[in-house]
Amino acid sequence: MFFPGSSKRLGMADELQKGLEGVLVAESEMSDIDGEAGRLVYRGYDIEDLARETTYEEVLYLLWHGDLPDSDELADFADAMAAERAVDDRVFDTLAALGEAGESPMAALRTGVSMLSTDEPEADAEPEDLAAARRKGRRIVAKIPTVLANYDRLRRGEDPVEPREDLGYAANFLYMLTGAEPDDVAAETFDMALILHADHGLNASTFTAMVIGSTLADLYSAVTGGIGALSGSLHGGANQDVIETLLEIEESDLTAQEWIEQQVANDARIPGWGHRVYKTKDPRAKILEAKLSDLSEADGDDQMLRYTSTIENYLVEEKNLIEKGIAPNVDFYSGAVYHKLGISADTYTPIFAMSRAGGWIGHVLEYQAENRLIRPRGRYTGPSPRDVPPIDER
Amino acid sequence: MFFPGSSKRLGMADELQKGLEGVLVAESEMSDIDGEAGRLVYRGYDIEDLARETTYEEVLYLLWHGDLPDSDELADFADAMAAERAVDDRVFDTLAALGEAGESPMAALRTGVSMLSTDEPEADAEPEDLAAARRKGRRIVAKIPTVLANYDRLRRGEDPVEPREDLGYAANFLYMLTGAEPDDVAAETFDMALILHADHGLNASTFTAMVIGSTLADLYSAVTGGIGALSGSLHGGANQDVIETLLEIEESDLTAQEWIEQQVANDARIPGWGHRVYKTKDPRAKILEAKLSDLSEADGDDQMLRYTSTIENYLVEEKNLIEKGIAPNVDFYSGAVYHKLGISADTYTPIFAMSRAGGWIGHVLEYQAENRLIRPRGRYTGPSPRDVPPIDER
Repeated sequence: MFFPGSSKRLGMADELQKGLEGVLVAESEMSDIDGEAGRLVYRGYDIEDLARETTYEEVLYLLWHGDLPDSDELADFADAMAAERAVDDRVFDTLAALGEAGESPMAALRTGVSMLSTDEPEADAEPEDLAAARRKGRRIVAKIPTVLANYDRLRRGEDPVEPREDLGYAANFLYMLTGAEPDDVAAETFDMALILHADHGLNASTFTAMVIGSTLADLYSAVTGGIGALSGSLHGGANQDVIETLLEIEESDLTAQEWIEQQVANDARIPGWGHRVYKTKDPRAKILEAKLSDLSEADGDDQMLRYTSTIENYLVEEKNLIEKGIAPNVDFYSGAVYHKLGISADTYTPIFAMSRAGGWIGHVLEYQAENRLIRPRGRYTGPSPRDVPPIDER
Repeated sequence: MFFPGSSKRLGMADELQKGLEGVLVAESEMSDIDGEAGRLVYRGYDIEDLARETTYEEVLYLLWHGDLPDSDELADFADAMAAERAVDDRVFDTLAALGEAGESPMAALRTGVSMLSTDEPEADAEPEDLAAARRKGRRIVAKIPTVLANYDRLRRGEDPVEPREDLGYAANFLYMLTGAEPDDVAAETFDMALILHADHGLNASTFTAMVIGSTLADLYSAVTGGIGALSGSLHGGANQDVIETLLEIEESDLTAQEWIEQQVANDARIPGWGHRVYKTKDPRAKILEAKLSDLSEADGDDQMLRYTSTIENYLVEEKNLIEKGIAPNVDFYSGAVYHKLGISADTYTPIFAMSRAGGWIGHVLEYQAENRLIRPRGRYTGPSPRDVPPIDER
């Protein structure tokens, strides 16, 4: 193979970069992670400040434009997005058919988002047209909750609920999902969860979206690909595991304390603990823990909070896990939070995708602004040249 | 960010690898390209030998298993695949709705393939189960022609045609597309075109499929992502450009000679010439040129062949382009070939995807056998830590 000058220039052309670990592929102004300090920032703003002081719509604007919107900019952006929430009936028809057949919500979301390109009014805009690309991104993000919430309804045999323009992004999702307007604590909690998951540096699904975008494919292809990558068990599936664990305690005869002691004695894996980057408590986990407490107070049911607190206390106080760099991650609390919001466990990863779509789109827009096709090299290690034998001599 | 040892080990952690050009991400036994010699091999076999002496089914078996099948293995593989060609009616319903709305065939294929996971009988197989993964791959490849050919029918307002098990892979596609069994030259030509596009080292769509597969996402997600990447104008769209050029000559008052002289005089881009890797005539172009000649002889219409020959003669003889490393690539002939087979121009890239799905699946299976999550690094270049201003102070 011929790659002009690459081996000389890099001095590393023959070294296999497994998983591309540590290989610097792009610069980005979007988010930064300090795993030692347990810190995540979006464009310089601490994730905890953003979660407490802004909405998901403001964070989307921030990620895509570089700065937080003022009130006029926010109103324009949020109103335009709210007006784009409806999807064509053909999407509901397809989702209903997928629901009857028992498709997983993550795969249904992948199909549903792929269908959304059909109604893109600016499909012919040039890839260089950043303003048009942002509007396309806004349309996708506007419609994902409509697809996801209504898939959950349709598979339960219920009629779809049309989105409401007068509700915030998070509240509208919960409204469509349940058919009832959520209370303030629920809406605020869900909004925070969306903010916390909106971006996280260069993870595998974000990189997938960037590779697709680097061919100048459209955002629908990039987001559909990101959903596919996030569906993998090495990437997006862990918050579902946590709630299954907590429900296992509920169904057992054990107290949470007895259960966690038994798990540790059996050397069992504890879902929601440890993170590739964070070596201390994930900043997103801290915020969701506080909201789990708020939700428990609001509905007078603190069972999940007691479970998570008992497990955390035991692992931190008795087992010193945080000193060993193993701490609760965002999934440890998001599962319990979503459970209290009445969301099915197999919809947690699709919700992650719904939120992260904002990050995927931001990274694709940023990358395409100085685009270069992403195409690493493979090394052929197969057979030497050989002749094709006739079929009766094989 | 913390990446253990990477900067020391690689000595390159701070060097931006634009487009990952030259960065070695994987070893593969599947295909090798010698751009200087104009040579492409699949597992050691020259692409020209494979095109002339085997079928697409044999090449799929070769790519996925490492060796060409004997007659029993081929019969088992091809029969099983033929039996899996039918898709559920819900896929046709969705395609019909997309067709009514005027969706592009490439986007419709992305949605249609995404839907196929709904009927995967081994969805719960472990990612490590290579035999199950191959069967999943076989089901996807079996069904893509049914999706694509019938999308073309449905958007024309025609009824879908069910696949026929008794026809070969290529012939069955043309049968569904046109409703009539193709003659031998057409079937053989299309089979060759599928073989020629089945794999091509580590291109952007193959890499996309591998990144998605590296999260242990399923093959439906990987192939859907590959289709998205191939839809980008920097990757898969060129053969459509070629035929549009040739039809432009037909509609003009110019001869092909006059037209190409004018294009060159105007310094216009000539689609189908030049290739990132091949610096001499693309081996795939040679084979398709011969088949274009066969097709022209069979139907007594050599207009397209005269156009391509005139252009090629002029650019090679008068302009010495091949000496400058610019030669006809596969797209220069595939467009004319597909045109003569009666296929719409906007279906050429989807046909590329149909064929390349075999390569995508092979690379994902190969990569997952020694899997490592693909996750390069980004460098944060955004604002320093800052406080969130209240909205009325922004």
